[in-house]
Amino acid sequence: MAGKIGLNVTQICLPRECTEDEIIEEVLKLNEDPRVHGVYLHLPPASLTSRVLNTLRPEKDMSGVGPLTAALRMQNVVQSSSRWAQGQQYRPWTLRSLKLQPLSPVPSDIEISRAQTPKPVDQLAQEIGLLQEETEAYGRTKAKVRLSLLDRLREQPDGKYVLVAGITPTPLGEGKSTVVIGLVQALSAHLKLNSFACLRQPSQGPTFGVKGGAAGGGYAQVIPMEEFNLHLTGDIHAITAANNLVAAAIDARMLHEATQKDKALYSRLVPSVNGVRRFSPIQIARLRRLGISEIDPSALMPQEVSSFVRLDLDPAKVTWQRVVDTNDRFLRKITVGQASTEKGHVRETQFDIAVASEIMAILALADGLGDMKTRLGRMVVGSSRSGQPVTAEDLGVSGALAVLMKDAIKPTLMQTLEGSPVFVHAGPFANIAHGNSSVLADKLALKLVGEDGFVVTEAGFGADIGMEKFFNIKCRASGLRPNVVVLVATVRALKMHGGGPNVLLNAVPCHHWARGGRGSVELAQAVKQAGSQPSHFQFLYSQETPIVEKIRMIAQKVYGADDIELSPEAQAKIDYYNQQGYGKLPICMAKTHLSLSHLPEKKGTPTGFTLPIRDIRASIGAGFIYPLVGTMSTMPGLPTRPCFYDIDLDPVTEEITGLF
Amino acid sequence: MAGKIGLNVTQICLPRECTEDEIIEEVLKLNEDPRVHGVYLHLPPASLTSRVLNTLRPEKDMSGVGPLTAALRMQNVVQSSSRWAQGQQYRPWTLRSLKLQPLSPVPSDIEISRAQTPKPVDQLAQEIGLLQEETEAYGRTKAKVRLSLLDRLREQPDGKYVLVAGITPTPLGEGKSTVVIGLVQALSAHLKLNSFACLRQPSQGPTFGVKGGAAGGGYAQVIPMEEFNLHLTGDIHAITAANNLVAAAIDARMLHEATQKDKALYSRLVPSVNGVRRFSPIQIARLRRLGISEIDPSALMPQEVSSFVRLDLDPAKVTWQRVVDTNDRFLRKITVGQASTEKGHVRETQFDIAVASEIMAILALADGLGDMKTRLGRMVVGSSRSGQPVTAEDLGVSGALAVLMKDAIKPTLMQTLEGSPVFVHAGPFANIAHGNSSVLADKLALKLVGEDGFVVTEAGFGADIGMEKFFNIKCRASGLRPNVVVLVATVRALKMHGGGPNVLLNAVPCHHWARGGRGSVELAQAVKQAGSQPSHFQFLYSQETPIVEKIRMIAQKVYGADDIELSPEAQAKIDYYNQQGYGKLPICMAKTHLSLSHLPEKKGTPTGFTLPIRDIRASIGAGFIYPLVGTMSTMPGLPTRPCFYDIDLDPVTEEITGLF
Repeated sequence: MAGKIGLNVTQICLPRECTEDEIIEEVLKLNEDPRVHGVYLHLPPASLTSRVLNTLRPEKDMSGVGPLTAALRMQNVVQSSSRWAQGQQYRPWTLRSLKLQPLSPVPSDIEISRAQTPKPVDQLAQEIGLLQEETEAYGRTKAKVRLSLLDRLREQPDGKYVLVAGITPTPLGEGKSTVVIGLVQALSAHLKLNSFACLRQPSQGPTFGVKGGAAGGGYAQVIPMEEFNLHLTGDIHAITAANNLVAAAIDARMLHEATQKDKALYSRLVPSVNGVRRFSPIQIARLRRLGISEIDPSALMPQEVSSFVRLDLDPAKVTWQRVVDTNDRFLRKITVGQASTEKGHVRETQFDIAVASEIMAILALADGLGDMKTRLGRMVVGSSRSGQPVTAEDLGVSGALAVLMKDAIKPTLMQTLEGSPVFVHAGPFANIAHGNSSVLADKLALKLVGEDGFVVTEAGFGADIGMEKFFNIKCRASGLRPNVVVLVATVRALKMHGGGPNVLLNAVPCHHWARGGRGSVELAQAVKQAGSQPSHFQFLYSQETPIVEKIRMIAQKVYGADDIELSPEAQAKIDYYNQQGYGKLPICMAKTHLSLSHLPEKKGTPTGFTLPIRDIRASIGAGFIYPLVGTMSTMPGLPTRPCFYDIDLDPVTEEITGLF
Repeated sequence: MAGKIGLNVTQICLPRECTEDEIIEEVLKLNEDPRVHGVYLHLPPASLTSRVLNTLRPEKDMSGVGPLTAALRMQNVVQSSSRWAQGQQYRPWTLRSLKLQPLSPVPSDIEISRAQTPKPVDQLAQEIGLLQEETEAYGRTKAKVRLSLLDRLREQPDGKYVLVAGITPTPLGEGKSTVVIGLVQALSAHLKLNSFACLRQPSQGPTFGVKGGAAGGGYAQVIPMEEFNLHLTGDIHAITAANNLVAAAIDARMLHEATQKDKALYSRLVPSVNGVRRFSPIQIARLRRLGISEIDPSALMPQEVSSFVRLDLDPAKVTWQRVVDTNDRFLRKITVGQASTEKGHVRETQFDIAVASEIMAILALADGLGDMKTRLGRMVVGSSRSGQPVTAEDLGVSGALAVLMKDAIKPTLMQTLEGSPVFVHAGPFANIAHGNSSVLADKLALKLVGEDGFVVTEAGFGADIGMEKFFNIKCRASGLRPNVVVLVATVRALKMHGGGPNVLLNAVPCHHWARGGRGSVELAQAVKQAGSQPSHFQFLYSQETPIVEKIRMIAQKVYGADDIELSPEAQAKIDYYNQQGYGKLPICMAKTHLSLSHLPEKKGTPTGFTLPIRDIRASIGAGFIYPLVGTMSTMPGLPTRPCFYDIDLDPVTEEITGLF
């Protein structure tokens, strides 16, 4: 009935006068003793000779480490031997729930968050079956999870995949994130089912502008909410750095090409290092695209040199923008290059909010490190004067981008107020991009919960935008299929949205905001029930369908439009994209979320309208084409009284106030 | 001679049919049993009732946690009881050195870095006497260290404080950072003395531009060098976010003031929430500065309302710039506000590299969270049309800045190739700011090494700039005094530089680049010897000296100038700063580092020149005045072939190439 767990660690503490040989003799004995799992060399520094150190078997060497590290190493040994078994076997988690005692009236979000002490994240990781080497803690409450997990659990069947979508937010902020968290709290803490929430990382811009926090609300929150809402584990900062490196490379390259002859450019781009000139692998990739098979720099023909060194970007056709994660309206349209050092090469451009970067969309859709790197390299940043697309790889920057993004690709593990696991990962803009959290987070979570578990993920904006894009872009990229959809507000057009997963209308009452998971138990039971039904998902359109037909199908079947109307610019872009071989990409509509139509004031289910397509753009790295229905702002502003007026930090207690 | 370390943890595994009372009876027994240190409640979920959970003593409760966490908790109990003793007592560390086997010829920096496996950072933290709750791991190889350490070790005497400064970098990159690291490797791994290196965090901009890595070089490096050179723990990203929030607030505020009447501004700045209007604490601070004691919003006189709501910033006198951590030359001079939504309020401005932000200088000089917050609030961002300085606190943004910077203030612990501890913290620009690593990192390190230990820190640029600023700005702010100065290159003007610490001229041969710490043992012995001598440090000038005299003393005594010559702009600024009460701030010269004079081509020890002071600026938050001697570029550019061409990531092995 009671078992004991012991670690057998031995110390060598010899008297000072011991000779080196005596110590080594002792070490050799301990090396061979199977009862001794580890050895401390607790010796005076002078006795720690390299002979002594080299005699002790590395796997037994605990020198200079404390009992904790020793325990940790033992644990590693035990873990590695049982890893295979763990990988193959589904087990319900022994998840320790955090108890909630909801107050009435419900306090502010930050007060609720602060009143709960989160579990150490390494404990949470262990509870849900992560191995120690699969996590990288960032402080006490956040950890990145390594993608190697997908290999280990390759044979594990996926859990049930639940999408939470919605039309309109409700008052008091019980929106979709709050439903996701309340539902997962109910599933895990109350129904004791393995379950995981997957959320988007919020942009820091609105946090200091108008919106406040985005970690759920009331008694359905991710904690600590301030960690969720601030830098998190730096992914958006990495995106900003990567995005702006591309931008700096574009303008610098245009300047260098404009001010140097072919020969000078070539001798700088392919310099002689210790008498040897050679192309870098990134440059060889460009040569391949140009159809040049020669890899000896001295053997290129002058015409080949010229096409190699000149991207010949048309300044008027650069589509890449700089980004900041700040609501800075004065950067919506700017002129750059006005210092005398830039020799008159001024250009009008703009900054977007960081989450509108194509790199964010790539992070959300990538399937792994290799896939992300490929997508980063093929991002189109503009076109040449002769109309050829110019990519990030042409700029030579694709490897550096992958290096900048190598940690961002790992989802961040956090927890709900009741101690259930949450992945926070990626948060692409929901209008010009697809507005969903990452494919990788969903995949990792589906493996971790196992066959009888649930992963609840969220689609941004309304069902006409977030859910449609979830189905036709995210699921297409990931190969995953949803089992259940929870709709936060009723919507008649639902059955038009691309397929036939089980639909659960939220007539089911939810009180998670005021009561936490206990308030969502009925919803959780309904989801569990719905998850056991077969699902008949299908895409709204085939990738093979021509671009214009794909747009028409979304406009007619999802929005209820009579037809679409293409501007001449839009028609010209379609022709160009077809010519470039982009015709098979899925469609990511950039449309207002305030109406099913293009007119924000048209509420309900408008009919009798024609959807105007003003222009069409493409995110070739992310892998979609985005028609613009009206004007989309990609940079929010600050109001007269931004919410930062209320945000403060007590320097003694380190407590934050004013995030809500 | 051999001792055993055991943890006694008991599991309760009852058969399913047990009643709640039977379980509780068992728990009560274990509660009282002193031989049982922890209990696992390994029970079916239905038996885990709140009565059961509440019966088990919290300190024995190991439910849902594995043996590792159990060990960890035990460790905590032991630690808390011995904390007081630890705090009071100096002990040589039992630091486990990593063995080096230097190759010849010396491989590339990234190859050397990758060939060495760093100790887990929690192990390093434990070895140097940090308590578990004092560190926050960021992955396996980096950890932030909490400032609470300063309280715990308040009574601990400081170690010896060693400054490494230099005039000119040597070929092959054996610059100052490399000397710092080689010296600390020698002190700790070879002389077995507690010792710590304190380095600046490098800007990511040059990493992808011309410079490559900045983690030392050869066999004297911080590892993993790619972690050091990339995002680290996000401090520069936090600075960028904070800096740009101020910038966005400035332009948005000017727009709102220009387009709204007093009453509208007031009703938005102090809105009625549930029928109640009240000032936020940040607004009350502004009222105080305006001399308004009233705190009832309805009781302000119209004139008071007007002066409260109008910062009345003069667009031509905004001194705050936006920043990015990218070498983006096209942002050196830009026009913002050109979108129609900004209603014609265009303005010329610029972006600086992030490390040139005043917030970086504040991070480097702050003495704690409270001090940092105060400095952030008093940063002057421009002046009003009537000539009054406008601060970050006037904009209402000071609390938000402190929130954004709350983690950045904790230094990051890493290690050298030989396993010695390194703090990486802050990296202010060395021309317009003071170019030294942080005061807090030095203070934490001095406590950790203890009385007989050594902290080796570095001053940027040459002795005329970095070392002069180290003495007169950093030491003045910190209250610390150096015991030893190591000069990487000989310099005759040394004795002019502000004081009399023991000077050690590097005639002592060093081979750390090729051989690691073993190559610097002679230097280490010399430093140890010098550290035992008394030091007679004094400042070059008193704070009370008038601004113009302080500038003249630096020009004459450090640079060897005959005199200084002030432009009319510079003279006007001095008058203005005196009038605003800034006259007692120390001086941070913005001068070329390529000559002791203002003329980069004058090598050696130039004489017979007059130093021209073109203009003078002030960093009121950081706390210094910086005279401009010539034009200082605050935004580097990208060359024709940036080093990002060689930087790549293998998506399978995750290995980085091309950082050097």
